Amino acid sequence: MAYAPSAPELPESFGQQLDEEARYTYAYPYGQPTNQLGSSGMFSPETHQDIVRSFESAGGNRSGFLDESELRHALSFSGYEGISNRTIRFLLFIYKSPAESLLRLGPKEYAELWNCLAQWRAMFDRYDSDRSGKMNALELRDAFYHLGYMLPSSVLQLIILSQLDDGTGNTVDLCFDRFLECGMIVKSLTEKFKEKDPGYTGYATLSYDAFMSMVIPFIASYD
Amino acid sequence: MAYAPSAPELPESFGQQLDEEARYTYAYPYGQPTNQLGSSGMFSPETHQDIVRSFESAGGNRSGFLDESELRHALSFSGYEGISNRTIRFLLFIYKSPAESLLRLGPKEYAELWNCLAQWRAMFDRYDSDRSGKMNALELRDAFYHLGYMLPSSVLQLIILSQLDDGTGNTVDLCFDRFLECGMIVKSLTEKFKEKDPGYTGYATLSYDAFMSMVIPFIASYD
Repeated sequence: MAYAPSAPELPESFGQQLDEEARYTYAYPYGQPTNQLGSSGMFSPETHQDIVRSFESAGGNRSGFLDESELRHALSFSGYEGISNRTIRFLLFIYKSPAESLLRLGPKEYAELWNCLAQWRAMFDRYDSDRSGKMNALELRDAFYHLGYMLPSSVLQLIILSQLDDGTGNTVDLCFDRFLECGMIVKSLTEKFKEKDPGYTGYATLSYDAFMSMVIPFIASYD
Repeated sequence: MAYAPSAPELPESFGQQLDEEARYTYAYPYGQPTNQLGSSGMFSPETHQDIVRSFESAGGNRSGFLDESELRHALSFSGYEGISNRTIRFLLFIYKSPAESLLRLGPKEYAELWNCLAQWRAMFDRYDSDRSGKMNALELRDAFYHLGYMLPSSVLQLIILSQLDDGTGNTVDLCFDRFLECGMIVKSLTEKFKEKDPGYTGYATLSYDAFMSMVIPFIASYD
């Protein structure tokens, strides 16, 4: 991995995480998911009020769930405007409970998504120092690194070619929506892989069925 | 795999292929890619004239390659109208030479794509018996089976949920463009997996880097 970081210092929490996990090819920025939900399918008392308010404003308190259009409403209420339909569906897929056959989020899943979005937003704003609303490919690389994903340069090149190339060999800048999608793809695939590599060896043996089931949810969905 | 096919009889070539490969969890509809290109980067003399004409009409004879907009032109010339930008880019990614860093196709890659599209088109038309231009989820299942992909029902369910669900739990019908995308995803991921499972055991051991590199090109790209 020929990677020389040249970005500002890390917050202490990122530093700790990198120290602990630097021996692995991949590392995890967020530790264990916080359990902000009681056993009754409601938010726990310590949940940030913005999370509860946005969930309720979108109608989640009636059905107990947010579907696609309600999630868009809730995120918009929380200041996340202009997230594409594709990204919304992608988030639903990643954050829905595995036991849930419909594309919808309960309070627990919504709180996890909300907290994760806040972290990606803070990372984006940190790199978007001129407040242009854009991030370039080099900044994306640094952001991944600081989020704990030490991607090999071959993988980074693939991400840039597949996600940022405008079709003529020129890379485009990322808006928050695309940054979020790129980041979520890397985070989610890495976590899926890690489930199959509990010993952190960097290798996993997968059946064909398991491989397809891991990957298909991350591929462009109906929009 | 609780799967009971109920579709019309197969063309002989599909039957042979299923007989030969039915012992595997996955099978390959197309055998080895045909080599329709001479060593000079030109089409070989036996290449179908429609392939050569569409390549040239889009300007491929000038640069030797088709880029994104030229490929759209060439496919439109060949009767494939209305293929989305996303699918065009997806096809470029799948069919470009691995040695090629730009998203563009030479004659050999274009001929392979063209032949593959013709087979998917024939399969689509066969299931679209009322010429509605649509295929439903059950027909998709049968089409995969007849193309040689004996997908486990759990994977089929995931494809239907991710690709055909309209966000409210209802499945939508597939137009040719979406059918092509679904089919290409399954075909390409299966072939990638098979490269790592040359003994057809149904299992592959992947490094994290190899896994990410296999998957990222198939994930929603810039559009």
